[in-house]
Amino acid sequence: MRFATYTAKDEVFYGAVHDEGMIALSPEFPQWPTLRDVIAGDGLAALEDAAQDKPVTHSDVTYEIPVPNPEKILCVGVNFPDRNAEYKDGSAAPKHMSLFPRFARSFTGAGRSLIRPPENHTLDYEGEVAIVIGKGGRRIKAEDAYDHIAALTLCNEGTIRDWVRHAKFNVTQGKNWDNSGAIGPWLVPFTDAAQLDDARIETRVNGEVRQEDTLNRMMFPIREEIAYISTFTTLVPGDIIITGTPTGAGARFDPPKYLVPGDVVEVEVEGIGILRNTVEDEFDTDEFGEEKA
Amino acid sequence: MRFATYTAKDEVFYGAVHDEGMIALSPEFPQWPTLRDVIAGDGLAALEDAAQDKPVTHSDVTYEIPVPNPEKILCVGVNFPDRNAEYKDGSAAPKHMSLFPRFARSFTGAGRSLIRPPENHTLDYEGEVAIVIGKGGRRIKAEDAYDHIAALTLCNEGTIRDWVRHAKFNVTQGKNWDNSGAIGPWLVPFTDAAQLDDARIETRVNGEVRQEDTLNRMMFPIREEIAYISTFTTLVPGDIIITGTPTGAGARFDPPKYLVPGDVVEVEVEGIGILRNTVEDEFDTDEFGEEKA
Repeated sequence: MRFATYTAKDEVFYGAVHDEGMIALSPEFPQWPTLRDVIAGDGLAALEDAAQDKPVTHSDVTYEIPVPNPEKILCVGVNFPDRNAEYKDGSAAPKHMSLFPRFARSFTGAGRSLIRPPENHTLDYEGEVAIVIGKGGRRIKAEDAYDHIAALTLCNEGTIRDWVRHAKFNVTQGKNWDNSGAIGPWLVPFTDAAQLDDARIETRVNGEVRQEDTLNRMMFPIREEIAYISTFTTLVPGDIIITGTPTGAGARFDPPKYLVPGDVVEVEVEGIGILRNTVEDEFDTDEFGEEKA
Repeated sequence: MRFATYTAKDEVFYGAVHDEGMIALSPEFPQWPTLRDVIAGDGLAALEDAAQDKPVTHSDVTYEIPVPNPEKILCVGVNFPDRNAEYKDGSAAPKHMSLFPRFARSFTGAGRSLIRPPENHTLDYEGEVAIVIGKGGRRIKAEDAYDHIAALTLCNEGTIRDWVRHAKFNVTQGKNWDNSGAIGPWLVPFTDAAQLDDARIETRVNGEVRQEDTLNRMMFPIREEIAYISTFTTLVPGDIIITGTPTGAGARFDPPKYLVPGDVVEVEVEGIGILRNTVEDEFDTDEFGEEKA
C-alpha cells in the first residue's frame, strides 16, 4: 500500500493511493494531523488496516510532498562513481559524504511544475531515492540503520546550477529555490532490505534516459548515511534523507542540457514508483518585463 | 521590553523579561502558542501592553531559544574583513555570501551548556547578531529589508571545527551538532535602524576578548543578506538569519584556542544583551569508556 499527502477541493488530506484516486484517511485519525505524526505514532499499519475495502474518496487531487513538515531534510552530495572515464579527475574518493539541508518549500509534489526562476535558467534535475525516518535516534549504528527507516519515496533534487557555486563553499543558494525540486509521489512502507539493496534508479527527460544506476553502487551506502548523520544530529520521525544522485545531470553534458519549460522529468525506481514533473517558468515575462524568447 | 521563551516547572512559556524573573504571557494568548506565532500575528506590541504593571510569574527559569520552531535558520559565513594583515591571503573579496542552514536542535538557550561531543574536541565559538523575520516576503529589496525584521537576538554559532572540512564542500556536519551553539537570551523588538547600524559586537571567553567589531564593517550588510536570501526562498515570520561573525574564532589562533569544559563564553551587543554559556562534555567518560583527562 502507498500513502500520499494531497489537496482536494482546497483541503489537505493524507490517504491511501488507489488506481482510481485516493482513499482519505486523515479524517479518521485526528490524533495524527499529518503523515509525519502518523510515522511518529508508528501508525502506517493502522492506516493500512483502515483503508481495507474502503471506496475512493477523491478522484481529482493534487499531490503535496508526502511529509509536508519534516524537521529536517538532508541531502547527500554526488554519491555514485562516474561511469565514464572522461569525467575522472584523478582525485581520491572522498573520506566523508557531502551533506546539505534543503527547506521543504524548495520541493513541490508529483505531477506539478518545477519552477524555473527569471534570475537564472540553469535549472537541472537530479533523480534520487529519499528515505523517511521512522524511529528516531542518535549515533545509530550502520548495521541497525534500516530499522530506523519507515518509508521510501523519490526525489528530483532540482538545482539552479549556477548558484551552487555562487559562494566558495556551501551549495545552499543553488539548492533551495522555491519549488525547484520535487518529492513524491507517495510513501511506500519500508519492510524489506531488498527494496533499497536491489533498487535501480533511472531519470528521464522527455523520455530520454539521462541517469541510471543501482543503489548498491553508492559510495556511501544508505546505512552509512544514517550512521554518519546521526553522529552529530538526533534524527526524528519524519526526517528525510535524500540519498544521492547518479552521474548524468544536465550540467555534465557539453553543452549542458538544462531543463526548459515544457520538459517532462521522470524519476523511477521499480517498487517505489515514478515521480513525474513538468517544467514551467515562474513568470510569463521575465523580471524586466520583456516577453519570453 | 524583551521577550523570552523559557521553561519553568517543566512547562514551556513565553513572556516578558523582568529584572526579578519572567512575566508569563503565553497563558494569555492561546491564539499564539509560541513566539513564532506572536511574530506571525504581528503581536509583539500586544505582548508589551499585556505585560504592563504585571507581577513576575516565574523567578526560576531556564532559557530556551527565543523562537523554538523557526521554519528556517540561515547563517552567513565569515562576514567581516580581517583586522590583521597577516591573515590576508590575497584572494579577492567574494562576490556572493556563503550561506548554510542550521537545525534548531543545534542550539541551546542562554545560560545553558554548549555540548562538546566525545567524537571531536574542536568546539569553537562564533559571536553573531541574529535577526528574526517579521513580515515575510520573496525578492525583498535591500532598501526595504529592515521593514521585514521583527526582532534581534544574539547567537553563539558554536562549531565543531574539524568537521567543517570533513567534506569537500558544505560545512553542514561541523555546524549542526546538537546543542553545540546557542541563541538568546531574548528577543529585542527592532524599532530603529541604529540598533543594527551602530552596533558593536564582542565575544569573550573567560572574560578575555576574542572577537570585536562593528556591524557597519560587514562585507555583506544585513540589508543585502535579506535581499539575497529572499531571491531564492520565501522568508516567513520567525525565520532567523545569523548574520556573520567577526574574525577571532579559536581556530584562528596558533595553536588554536578551542573551548574546553568549564569555559564561559559571552557574546555581547549593547542594546541587545549578553548571551552567556558554559561548556560541558556530553558524557562524563568518553565514547570508549575512558575517564576524562
